[in-house]
Amino acid sequence: MTAFTPKDPDFHSRVTADFAKQALMRTIGARLTLIEAGQCEISMNKRDDLCQQHGFVHAGITTTLADTAAGYAALSLMPPGAEVLSTEFKINLMNPAAGQFFTARAEVLKPGRTLTVVRSDVWADNDGKRTLIASMLATMICLAGNQDVRQ
Amino acid sequence: MTAFTPKDPDFHSRVTADFAKQALMRTIGARLTLIEAGQCEISMNKRDDLCQQHGFVHAGITTTLADTAAGYAALSLMPPGAEVLSTEFKINLMNPAAGQFFTARAEVLKPGRTLTVVRSDVWADNDGKRTLIASMLATMICLAGNQDVRQ
Amino acid sequence: MTAFTPKDPDFHSRVTADFAKQALMRTIGARLTLIEAGQCEISMNKRDDLCQQHGFVHAGITTTLADTAAGYAALSLMPPGAEVLSTEFKINLMNPAAGQFFTARAEVLKPGRTLTVVRSDVWADNDGKRTLIASMLATMICLAGNQDVRQ
Amino acid sequence: MTAFTPKDPDFHSRVTADFAKQALMRTIGARLTLIEAGQCEISMNKRDDLCQQHGFVHAGITTTLADTAAGYAALSLMPPGAEVLSTEFKINLMNPAAGQFFTARAEVLKPGRTLTVVRSDVWADNDGKRTLIASMLATMICLAGNQDVRQ
Repeated sequence: MTAFTPKDPDFHSRVTADFAKQALMRTIGARLTLIEAGQCEISMNKRDDLCQQHGFVHAGITTTLADTAAGYAALSLMPPGAEVLSTEFKINLMNPAAGQFFTARAEVLKPGRTLTVVRSDVWADNDGKRTLIASMLATMICLAGNQDVRQ
Repeated sequence: MTAFTPKDPDFHSRVTADFAKQALMRTIGARLTLIEAGQCEISMNKRDDLCQQHGFVHAGITTTLADTAAGYAALSLMPPGAEVLSTEFKINLMNPAAGQFFTARAEVLKPGRTLTVVRSDVWADNDGKRTLIASMLATMICLAGNQDVRQ
Repeated sequence: MTAFTPKDPDFHSRVTADFAKQALMRTIGARLTLIEAGQCEISMNKRDDLCQQHGFVHAGITTTLADTAAGYAALSLMPPGAEVLSTEFKINLMNPAAGQFFTARAEVLKPGRTLTVVRSDVWADNDGKRTLIASMLATMICLAGNQDVRQ
Repeated sequence: MTAFTPKDPDFHSRVTADFAKQALMRTIGARLTLIEAGQCEISMNKRDDLCQQHGFVHAGITTTLADTAAGYAALSLMPPGAEVLSTEFKINLMNPAAGQFFTARAEVLKPGRTLTVVRSDVWADNDGKRTLIASMLATMICLAGNQDVRQ
């Protein structure tokens, strides 16, 4: 992991405040468990109402965790006033999302003025055993404070 | 669009029953609005509790719709007793998910014995104007009835 | 397909001149066979020196065709003086690249000031039968003429 | 990095022999520089005939290196007689492919009976400085010896 120097010394509280504004995070019970310069971790307990037809957490929810962690890992390196949007991501779902507890951990591969590339992995904790269930590669875009939310 | 011949004449009721088992679909208020051989459409109304920090529907929910439509488009062409799992997908988020109503529409590009490739687009209806907000390319895997849910 | 209005009325000759500068296109024998506003087609004959271990054209060459067509479909809609770079793409290889002749056809899904999203499909002609062998979803970035080739 | 146990003790010579059959590798001057259980490294010198319009190595060639390394990292863990095919991959091109020398390094994230997920990074050596220029996430499929090269 490369060490990155944040452009906003106050990134920690900025990311925390932004996360708190995400209604979906409350809806699915996700918690921001770590935010460092270029890194972010988000956790969630299993809930039956977030599952698919086989009783595993739905791929869309696994993706939600990975994407959100990726977005905040990117935002942590953006300048004050900037906002982050996902432009695209790809995720491989490698093992069923079975477990009591899920954690997405993202780290920036390449921060850029416009685009930031992030890797984000999701782990399942199942009876004390931790398994990698998904890996994402994502591109985040930096919107300056006065910009419209369009690319 | 290529026309495909389903291996299971009863695919319509099989997909409908499978969709009904997905707790997450109820949680987010998604409805299966079309299922044909190699095609599927899923719709959802906007809800504030599914939004991100700018008040748009979260990319993870847009992805959930696209992925679920892709999965059932694939399942519609699989043999009786088969189950479907997402192995991977990539999505480009092209416009903010702003609107009152969202529709994911998926169509199979290549059905295979093991892997099925699906394209899935998501549209937003905003005051009567329909905008393409996302496009996905996904790989689905066919699990025979007696197989474990592992790849 | 949406119809797009080019920002540069001279896009046709600009794209043609740019293509001519790509040494790799000569190396693999690729030809620019169509360029319209938001669309591009590139063709190539099979050559044994471009194949992989099973005698099919290598996935990397299929990707090269799809990516190049995607880049020029995007460039056709960019303003005069702009240059295009691939930021990322994903490709599904659906059928073996078997045939005498290959064609990549790209069309823009969403042109943007900064990012342009493009879909690009590759077809193989094998004894007069045309098969879809690959489908790509790509993000292209617009570099203004005086900008550095960095994101 | 997880340590993997190969199913074929002879994987090293099997991969080496397979690589030697790839005509494209000779065409672009690529060399297999490392093969371990679940890991592979492929290197290539810069050549002008492999470049795009700005004088950088073409994204399609960078992808060729990443994909080939990913394929052999996967093959190293497959049983005797198996063959490998790329089913899909996604690559982010993070920095221009500028340098005298390029290296793709792949490692398996999840080996499976049917599908293997691989991460593959490409580095440029430019006047002694090594830069990460691309990162790929790929899905490889295992074909048993007597199987057709179809999915």
